[in-house]
Amino acid sequence: MVGMVGGGQLARMTHQAAIALGQSLRVLAVNPDDGAALVAADTHLGSHTDIEALRRFAKGCDVVTFDHELVPGDLIRALAAEGVPVRPGAEALRFAQDKGAMRERLSALGAPVPRWRRLPSAGADAELVEFAALVGGFPVIGKSTTGGYDGRGVWVWDSVADATAVLDAGVELIVEERVALKRELAAVVARSPWGQVAAYPVVETVQEGGICVEVIAPAPGLDPDRAVTAQELAIRIATELGVVGVLAVELFETVDGELLVNELAMRPHNSGHWTIEGARTSQFEQHLRAVLDYPLGDTSLAAPVVVMANVLGGAAGGMGIDERVHHLFAADPAVKVHLYGKQVRPGRKIGHVTALGDDLATVRARAARAARWLRDGEGEIDPHHQPARTH
Amino acid sequence: MVGMVGGGQLARMTHQAAIALGQSLRVLAVNPDDGAALVAADTHLGSHTDIEALRRFAKGCDVVTFDHELVPGDLIRALAAEGVPVRPGAEALRFAQDKGAMRERLSALGAPVPRWRRLPSAGADAELVEFAALVGGFPVIGKSTTGGYDGRGVWVWDSVADATAVLDAGVELIVEERVALKRELAAVVARSPWGQVAAYPVVETVQEGGICVEVIAPAPGLDPDRAVTAQELAIRIATELGVVGVLAVELFETVDGELLVNELAMRPHNSGHWTIEGARTSQFEQHLRAVLDYPLGDTSLAAPVVVMANVLGGAAGGMGIDERVHHLFAADPAVKVHLYGKQVRPGRKIGHVTALGDDLATVRARAARAARWLRDGEGEIDPHHQPARTH
Repeated sequence: MVGMVGGGQLARMTHQAAIALGQSLRVLAVNPDDGAALVAADTHLGSHTDIEALRRFAKGCDVVTFDHELVPGDLIRALAAEGVPVRPGAEALRFAQDKGAMRERLSALGAPVPRWRRLPSAGADAELVEFAALVGGFPVIGKSTTGGYDGRGVWVWDSVADATAVLDAGVELIVEERVALKRELAAVVARSPWGQVAAYPVVETVQEGGICVEVIAPAPGLDPDRAVTAQELAIRIATELGVVGVLAVELFETVDGELLVNELAMRPHNSGHWTIEGARTSQFEQHLRAVLDYPLGDTSLAAPVVVMANVLGGAAGGMGIDERVHHLFAADPAVKVHLYGKQVRPGRKIGHVTALGDDLATVRARAARAARWLRDGEGEIDPHHQPARTH
Repeated sequence: MVGMVGGGQLARMTHQAAIALGQSLRVLAVNPDDGAALVAADTHLGSHTDIEALRRFAKGCDVVTFDHELVPGDLIRALAAEGVPVRPGAEALRFAQDKGAMRERLSALGAPVPRWRRLPSAGADAELVEFAALVGGFPVIGKSTTGGYDGRGVWVWDSVADATAVLDAGVELIVEERVALKRELAAVVARSPWGQVAAYPVVETVQEGGICVEVIAPAPGLDPDRAVTAQELAIRIATELGVVGVLAVELFETVDGELLVNELAMRPHNSGHWTIEGARTSQFEQHLRAVLDYPLGDTSLAAPVVVMANVLGGAAGGMGIDERVHHLFAADPAVKVHLYGKQVRPGRKIGHVTALGDDLATVRARAARAARWLRDGEGEIDPHHQPARTH
């Protein structure tokens, strides 16, 4: 039995994949109405920061894995020391939990990253001015080393004054150059304990306000050599860091044609949701195959173009989600809907949709329309959106 | 919330589909280790022949549907009378529960069926001799009107003496001509309460000892006009009988090129398991869309050739299923495995595999190999098997 710590949509979709493999995922959820807790037969309620809850949960699991990066490394190491197979392990997961450690490790590996440095707790102002001068001036990007996601914990600073509030908050920070961005890409791979790595086609990810709204597979017009470079880079990072399970490498493609690593995630990732229908093996099945040390599955595309769009919660009011699904299914019988069973809050990811086909513009428009129709309230997602030039 | 009566693999796979739709299937299972009970968060334990268990189960469900045909019509009518939406309803389901009633109704509709008659409880011998003379002599096919599946409740009689034991058992019987069979086909459709019907491509089903071992989509070499005839027939039956949900129409294709209806099933059916990866909408999602009165999903093929092979339990001994999965995944990273979480018994369906591709012979061989490798013990499934000439 595989145990997954965290009861969100990643665990929910991993449970679907586990069922096909003759398994049933055990889930450690904080709340009984967490997305995965609503659907998995074997749900434990407890905190991922409580070692006793983790111990009870892990008992009887063949392997423990994660829906998020929030379990403290000390607790993971404690479980491992007690004989629980934890995949990925604490030593790998650290680089998905701490952006400073990740940047240091990738720099040491010679992996391309934006220019960056740690900001000291004292004298950060002077460091910031010096760093900005080094990279051609403000704006620069500030990042909390831990806990950020979906645009949280990331700031665009136009001056030292801009950074004051964050610097004063006492969180551990790094500063990075603002990259001249053509677009964002993601290279998703999976690695097994035996060491096999399988790479999915490289995708383009479109962000809005720091939140991923659209993923296009394969990345349109990506130079084939550059795609292989991105896959090789992800395979090398997975191998050097000893990752087990899915590794998503978020990349910047710069206007100069460079690839730079932005973030790492060591679990099924939003940039891989398209694989459920769009690849021969979904990233959720792949993650299970990896942590179970099964040979990995075929990562081929199931259609020439696959587009995933996130469904974000809108303002209250308007049609209910059930009515919206009716209208959408009548308008497009082929679009695939994934709803996470979440309470709607504005901007929260409450589901995603996937469209497959032959023509990029058509498939993008179908996915964008589906996501917009499913959005509660009056939200809009522009299918012809230009990616923001900041992170 | 959708409630499904029965905790077998059909409910298990319907639960997977429900999760994507933002739902969680409620399951009424007899045993806690039934396939669906192992994976669904909301499992009730109880008998499908106990009206009180059914009432408790149905409370709070938006609609109740079925994993099997074993709920007595009286109980379904009682639930419906109490205001529970039951889909399909008792009046439709009757024709999937009683082969005599089905044959009468289809004959009245002018739907093509094998020549048949009911055998009376007294004087059956004489009826049998007369019927055999009418259809060109023995052998003829005896069928129990209720309860038969996977070859049970079906007999080939070479003489009256052959039939004696069954006639003496006192079960209600029909007798049918033995059809000069080219092969078996299945036309799977779904119908919503609103009346929309969606038809999947017609498939070939290959039986061994009365058990389906292989399904090929689309049916190889099937005349396109005949395929449309089969779909029209299934649509007409679904509509005339008022079916809601998936309807599988099992068909004989005779050596003379006729299509005759063999059996009906009003639920997701083994002949539609290929749709999970092989069609844009799986039959499980389609069944849910139908019973929820959502517009139905796209039934297009996801690949030119899709082959599903059932995994049957073998004799005890040999490798365990986990080890078999390892070897299979290493040999064929693209084959998709579905295991039902069942205890292995010889001949029992414990899972299925699906292969997709462009070349019929290659895809059939891959599916057959996968099913054979997963079979415990020493069982063999011949990929070049000729369909049996009896039912």
